Amino acid sequence: MNFFEESLKMHENKKGKIEVISKVKVESRDDLSIAYSPGVAEPCKMIKENKENVYKYTSKGNMVAVVTDGSAVLGLGNIGPEAGLPVMEGKAILFKEFGGVDAFPICIDSNDVDTIVNTVKLIAPGFGGINLEDISAPRCFEIEERLKKELDIPVFHDDQHGTAIVVLAGVLNALKLVNKNIEDVKVVVNGVGAAGTAIAKLLMSAGVKNLVPCDKVGIITEDMEEIDYAKRDLARIANPKKITGTLKDALKGADIFIGVSAPGIVTTEMVEKMNKDSILFAMANPVPEIMPDEAKKGGARVIGTGRSDLPNQVNNVSVFPGLFKGALSVRASEINEEMKIAAAMAIANSIDEKDLNDENIIPSSLDKTIAIKVADAVAEAARKTGVARI
Amino acid sequence: MNFFEESLKMHENKKGKIEVISKVKVESRDDLSIAYSPGVAEPCKMIKENKENVYKYTSKGNMVAVVTDGSAVLGLGNIGPEAGLPVMEGKAILFKEFGGVDAFPICIDSNDVDTIVNTVKLIAPGFGGINLEDISAPRCFEIEERLKKELDIPVFHDDQHGTAIVVLAGVLNALKLVNKNIEDVKVVVNGVGAAGTAIAKLLMSAGVKNLVPCDKVGIITEDMEEIDYAKRDLARIANPKKITGTLKDALKGADIFIGVSAPGIVTTEMVEKMNKDSILFAMANPVPEIMPDEAKKGGARVIGTGRSDLPNQVNNVSVFPGLFKGALSVRASEINEEMKIAAAMAIANSIDEKDLNDENIIPSSLDKTIAIKVADAVAEAARKTGVARI
Repeated sequence: MNFFEESLKMHENKKGKIEVISKVKVESRDDLSIAYSPGVAEPCKMIKENKENVYKYTSKGNMVAVVTDGSAVLGLGNIGPEAGLPVMEGKAILFKEFGGVDAFPICIDSNDVDTIVNTVKLIAPGFGGINLEDISAPRCFEIEERLKKELDIPVFHDDQHGTAIVVLAGVLNALKLVNKNIEDVKVVVNGVGAAGTAIAKLLMSAGVKNLVPCDKVGIITEDMEEIDYAKRDLARIANPKKITGTLKDALKGADIFIGVSAPGIVTTEMVEKMNKDSILFAMANPVPEIMPDEAKKGGARVIGTGRSDLPNQVNNVSVFPGLFKGALSVRASEINEEMKIAAAMAIANSIDEKDLNDENIIPSSLDKTIAIKVADAVAEAARKTGVARI
Repeated sequence: MNFFEESLKMHENKKGKIEVISKVKVESRDDLSIAYSPGVAEPCKMIKENKENVYKYTSKGNMVAVVTDGSAVLGLGNIGPEAGLPVMEGKAILFKEFGGVDAFPICIDSNDVDTIVNTVKLIAPGFGGINLEDISAPRCFEIEERLKKELDIPVFHDDQHGTAIVVLAGVLNALKLVNKNIEDVKVVVNGVGAAGTAIAKLLMSAGVKNLVPCDKVGIITEDMEEIDYAKRDLARIANPKKITGTLKDALKGADIFIGVSAPGIVTTEMVEKMNKDSILFAMANPVPEIMPDEAKKGGARVIGTGRSDLPNQVNNVSVFPGLFKGALSVRASEINEEMKIAAAMAIANSIDEKDLNDENIIPSSLDKTIAIKVADAVAEAARKTGVARI
C-alpha cells in the first residue's frame, strides 16, 4: 500500500480527521434550557465562586491542547502552522482512540518563543493539559520550561519525552535480556536535538551513570562554540569529564547506542567495537542509522528502529495517551521525572518476561490496553510525588 | 422543572458537554500509517505547497472558534474565562447539533482588546471562522472590527448580530401581518449595548429610515458626554437630527419598540401612545421590558420576548449554526450585511404566510431545518456580493 497516496485520498474524502460533538442531546425545549440558557447560568456561577469547579462542570479536565508552531513537523522542517495541522489532528485522534482523552489542535502563527508561551497561557483556561508538538529545538526547551513554570496544568513536549519514555522502556527490557544493570552500562546518544536530549536526561534519571552525548561534531563538550546553548547544557551534565572524540570513538566499549540522527552513519565495524550483547536504537526516519541486519553482523543483540515494518518499533503512541490520561485523572499539576519513569516501566512490564525476546522488547503501538497500564502507573507516581491534586 | 438544578446535575454527570472524536478508525497498522505517520506527511506537503489546501485536507473548513474573555456572560457580568466555559461549550454543541458545524471554545485569560485580537489571530490557522461570544461592550465592537479587517475568515459577534438577525426576521414577519412597509415605520431601540447597536444598524441596512436610539439617559445624541464612543457613533448615524427626549417621548407615534434593556420599563400607557398595530420586542431577561398581556392592554398587536415560555421567542439558535454553515460552505471571506439580511429573510420566510399570526412570527428554535434554509440563503448572498471564495 502506498501510504502517502492513501493518506492524501483519505484526508480529502473526510476533510480532516476530527470533529467536535455533543455529549448531550438537544432535541426538546427542556434539553436546550438545561444545556444552554437559562440553566447553564448555574454551573457558570459555581465556577465563578470557585475556579476549581471548572473541572467539575466542564470538559476542561479531559481536554488537551496539541500545540505547535509548525516549525519541526515530521522530517519536513518549518512548514508553518497550517501545514502542521494534519499531524496535530492525527495526534488528537490518537489521544482519543488510545487514551479516551479529548485533544484539540492549536496551530500558532508565530515562531517567537515569548509569543508562543503567552498565547498558550492566554488560552489555557479551557484546557486540562498542554501537549507541545513539532516545535524545533532549542526553542522547544525554553517554551516547555517556561510553560511548566507558569502554568498549573501538565505541559509535555511529546517529541522530547514521549520518545524518551519508549526508549527507556525498550532499554529496560533489553537489559533484562542481556542481564546487565542500568547503572553499569555505557550509553551513547547520537543526535541531541529535542528527542536526543530528553532521552539522555531520562536515562540518567533512570540510573545511567555513563552516558556519552554525541552530535554531528562528535562527542559534545560544554566548551564547544559550534553547538547551541541547550546542547552545551546537556554536555555540562552528561559529559563532566569533557571526553572528546568521534562517534566511532564513543562507540568503543559501549553497551547501548541510541540514534536520533541520520541514515546509515553507524557501520558494522563500529558495532563490532561495542561490548558484547550490544543494544541499538537506530531511530533515524525512514532510514535508520544502521539497518538491523547490518548491526547483527557486527554482533548486536537487540535492535529497535522507528519503523513499523521492523521489530521493536519505538512509537510514542504507547506513551502520550496513557500519560495524559493518568495525569489528568489525578489532576496533576505537572508531569515530573518519576511519572515519566513510571510510564516507561509500565510499558516495559506490559510484556511478560516469558514473552520477552530480542525482537519483542516494546509492546505493539496498536495495543490499546497499554494506555490504561501507563495511566495507572502515572497516576500512582503523581500521588507519591505530591503533584496529584485529587 | 428547575432548569438550574437540572443543568448543574447534568454538567457534573457529563463533566462538560463536548468531546473531540475521530472521523476515521485507528485499529490496524495501516490505519495508523494513513492517519498518522508516515502517510500524513503527504497532506502536510500539499498544504506547505499551497496554503489553501488546508481547506481540502483538514477540519479547518468546518471548524469555528467560539471565543470569549468571559466579560459579559449571560446576565452574570465579567465572570472570567473559566466560568464562561459552560456557555461556550453550549454554543459549540448547538453549532454541531443544529448546523453540523464543528465548534470549539477558546476562553481567553485577558480583557485587553489588543491581547484578545492578537491571540485570536495567532490561533486562527486552525479555524475556518471566529464566533465572538459574551464580550462586553464597547470592547466587543473594536475586537470584531479589527479581527474582520485583519483576518480572511468570517468573524461574527453573535451577541450583536445573531440577535439582530432574529429581530429583523421577526420585524419582517410582523410587518406583513400589520401591512406596513419597513421604509415607513418608526422604530425605537432601547438599550444600545452590543445587541441593541447591531439591531439598530441591521434594521437601517434593511430599510428602516426612522429609528430612534435610546439608552438609560433617554434618546441619545452624538454630543452627549455621558455615553461611550460606540453609542455616540450610533447616535451620529441613527439620530442625525439630534432629537432629544425620554423613552416615553420616543415611543409616541412609534410603530415598533425593540428593548434589550431592563425589566418593566415600558408601561401600558406608553404603548397606548404608539401607533395602531404596534409591535414590541421586549427582550430583557428573564423579565421583559413589558409583559405581553400588559402590552396588549395598551393596544399592541405583536409581542416577542427572549423567553421560551412565551410566544415569539427571539433566540439566536436560529441564526448562528446556519449562518456559519452557509459562510463556510462557500469559504466566505467575511459575513457582510447582505448575508445577515439574507439570513433574516430565510428565517422569516420559513414560516408560510398562511401560518403567520400574531403569536407565530418567529420559527421554533428547535426546528433543525431552519439552519439549512439559512445556510443556503447566506451562501447565495455571499456569492452575489463576491465574498465567496469557492
